[in-house]
Amino acid sequence: MANFEVNILGCGSATPSLRHLPACQVVDFRDNLMMIDCGEGAQLGMRRQRLKYSRLSHIFISHLHGDHFFGLPGLLSTLALHGKTGTVTVHIFEQGAEWLKRTMDTFCTDRPYELEYDIIKPEHRVILDTKSLTVETFPLYHRVPAAGFIMREKPKLRHLRGDMAKFYNIPVSLLHGIKEGADYVTPEGTVVANERLTSPADPSHSYAYCSDTIFDERVGGSVRGVETIYHEATYIDADKDKAAARFHSTASQAAMTAREAGARRLILGHYSKSYTDESQHLAEARAIFPDTIAATEGLRVDLTESPAD
Amino acid sequence: MANFEVNILGCGSATPSLRHLPACQVVDFRDNLMMIDCGEGAQLGMRRQRLKYSRLSHIFISHLHGDHFFGLPGLLSTLALHGKTGTVTVHIFEQGAEWLKRTMDTFCTDRPYELEYDIIKPEHRVILDTKSLTVETFPLYHRVPAAGFIMREKPKLRHLRGDMAKFYNIPVSLLHGIKEGADYVTPEGTVVANERLTSPADPSHSYAYCSDTIFDERVGGSVRGVETIYHEATYIDADKDKAAARFHSTASQAAMTAREAGARRLILGHYSKSYTDESQHLAEARAIFPDTIAATEGLRVDLTESPAD
Repeated sequence: MANFEVNILGCGSATPSLRHLPACQVVDFRDNLMMIDCGEGAQLGMRRQRLKYSRLSHIFISHLHGDHFFGLPGLLSTLALHGKTGTVTVHIFEQGAEWLKRTMDTFCTDRPYELEYDIIKPEHRVILDTKSLTVETFPLYHRVPAAGFIMREKPKLRHLRGDMAKFYNIPVSLLHGIKEGADYVTPEGTVVANERLTSPADPSHSYAYCSDTIFDERVGGSVRGVETIYHEATYIDADKDKAAARFHSTASQAAMTAREAGARRLILGHYSKSYTDESQHLAEARAIFPDTIAATEGLRVDLTESPAD
Repeated sequence: MANFEVNILGCGSATPSLRHLPACQVVDFRDNLMMIDCGEGAQLGMRRQRLKYSRLSHIFISHLHGDHFFGLPGLLSTLALHGKTGTVTVHIFEQGAEWLKRTMDTFCTDRPYELEYDIIKPEHRVILDTKSLTVETFPLYHRVPAAGFIMREKPKLRHLRGDMAKFYNIPVSLLHGIKEGADYVTPEGTVVANERLTSPADPSHSYAYCSDTIFDERVGGSVRGVETIYHEATYIDADKDKAAARFHSTASQAAMTAREAGARRLILGHYSKSYTDESQHLAEARAIFPDTIAATEGLRVDLTESPAD
C-alpha cells in the first residue's frame, strides 16, 4: 500500500516536560522511514511506536538547537548496535554535520551502515529527489538559521483501463507510457486519446514541517499548496509578545500560515512547557483554521486521508 | 537530616528497551545531588523523579560508551535554560571532556552556571574531597578504559552528652574538639575521658558503583568494606560466555564481588535487553549474596538504612 503518514515522537519545546518530549517525528512514506528532527529520546520513541530502525534512511534536522538534534549520537549508535545496513543520510546545517561526524568518528566507529551527511541551508532547494518523492528545504525565521521541509509525493501514474487495453490489443511495451499520459496510435494510424484508455491518477499528497519559526508571511508563501502542515505553536495568544521575542509562533499564527497556504490540515506542536494542556492552542487555531489537530506523542496522521471534521 | 540515598534513573544496557533506560543514577547526599553516568534521557529522569536541577553539582562518567554519557549535552543545556547558577563539575575521561567542551562551547554558550571538567583515569584516587564526603575512582575492566566510583561519608562527630557538658561546665570553645574525640581537662587538671562526655558517632555510610566491568577479583578488592554496592549484572548464568566475551558480568558474578567485598547490600543493574524480567538475575545473585535487590527506574535506596531482609 502506498502509505504516507507522520508519527509524532516528540512535540514539546526546549526543555522536556513530563508531558512532552523534545522535537522528533517520523514520516513513513511507503514503508521507508524519514525522521524530522531528532531530540533526545528519538531512539526510544521509535521503539515505543514500533518504527523499525532497519527502515530509517533519512534524517532531516531543522536547526541546531539541542532539543532538535541531541538525540542523533544515541540513535545512530543504536542503529550500529542493531546491525543496520544500507545508508543513513543526515541532512543538517554545516556546524551540526561537523559535530556529528566528529562525535560518531570518535565514539561509534564500528558501523555496519553508511552514514552520509548532506549540508543544508535556509533556502528553497530540493535536497532529495527519489522516484516517487521530493523533499525541499525552505527558510524559517528563528534565532539561528533554520529550515523547514516539504515532502511531496510525485504525480502518480494514471490507471489503465484493462478492457480498453485489451480491446485495442495495446503492446505491453507501450503501457507505461500510456499510464504516464500518452495517447495510443493504432497500427492503422488512428489516435486513441489517453482519456479513453485511462482513468485519473490517485492524488499526490504533501506535507510541510514548519518549526521553529517566528510568524512571517513568507512561511505561508513557501508552503502554499501543501496539503498538511505541521507548524510550531509554542504559545497561545496571551503570550504573543513572548512568542515574538523568542522567535516562536502562537497557535493562531500557525493557523494564519495554514490558511494563507491554502492547506487542508494543520497539526500543531512544539508547545511550551508552561501550559497544562493544549486546549487553548487548539481553540485559538480552530477559530482561524478549523481543520486543526494538536500533536501528541504517539499520534499517527494518515497524510493520504482528508481531515475528519 | 543527613540523607544519603541513590535514585535509579536508568538501569538498562547499550540500546534502550521499552523496559529500561540507559545508565544513570543520582546520589542525594545531604540534599546535594551527584549524578553517576548520564545516558540519554537523564534530564527527563530527573524531572520524573523530582530531583532538582538546582541541586546538581557533580556528574561522574564511568566510561565513554554512548549509553553512559550521551545525555550530557541535553542535560547541561537544560540546566542553562533553567537558569541554574553555581558550578557543575563533570568528572570524565579526557576524550569525553574534549568532546563535551567542544559541544557545549558550540551549541550552549549562554550558561549562567560554571561548567568545569575534571579528567579521571581508571586508577585508585580521591577525586572529590569535601567536608563530609570523599569520592574515589578505582579501575574497572571493560572493553574501553572504565572507572568505578566509591562515595564515602567521612567519620561523623561523636554526640556530646549535654548533662556532662553542663556538669563540668565545659567552655563552648572546647565542645567541637570533644565531639571529635578529645578528653576534657578541668581547670584543676583532672582529665575527664571522652567516653564519659560523649556517646559514639552515628555510623558513616558508603556506596560503590561498579559498571561496566567483566568479573575480576580486583573489583571486589577495590570496594572492600563498602556498605552498598551497585554492580552491573548484564547477563544471567546461562549467558556467562557472552558476558565474558563482551567484558560484562553476570548477576552471580556481581554477587561474588559483593561477598568478596564484605558488603551489606548489593543492587543489580545494567540489564541486557534480551530478558523479559530480572527475576532470574535476582535468584542467581541471592543464592550467593542474599541482601541483593534489583534496580529499576524510579527505585530510591536509603543508604543509611540496613537492608530489609
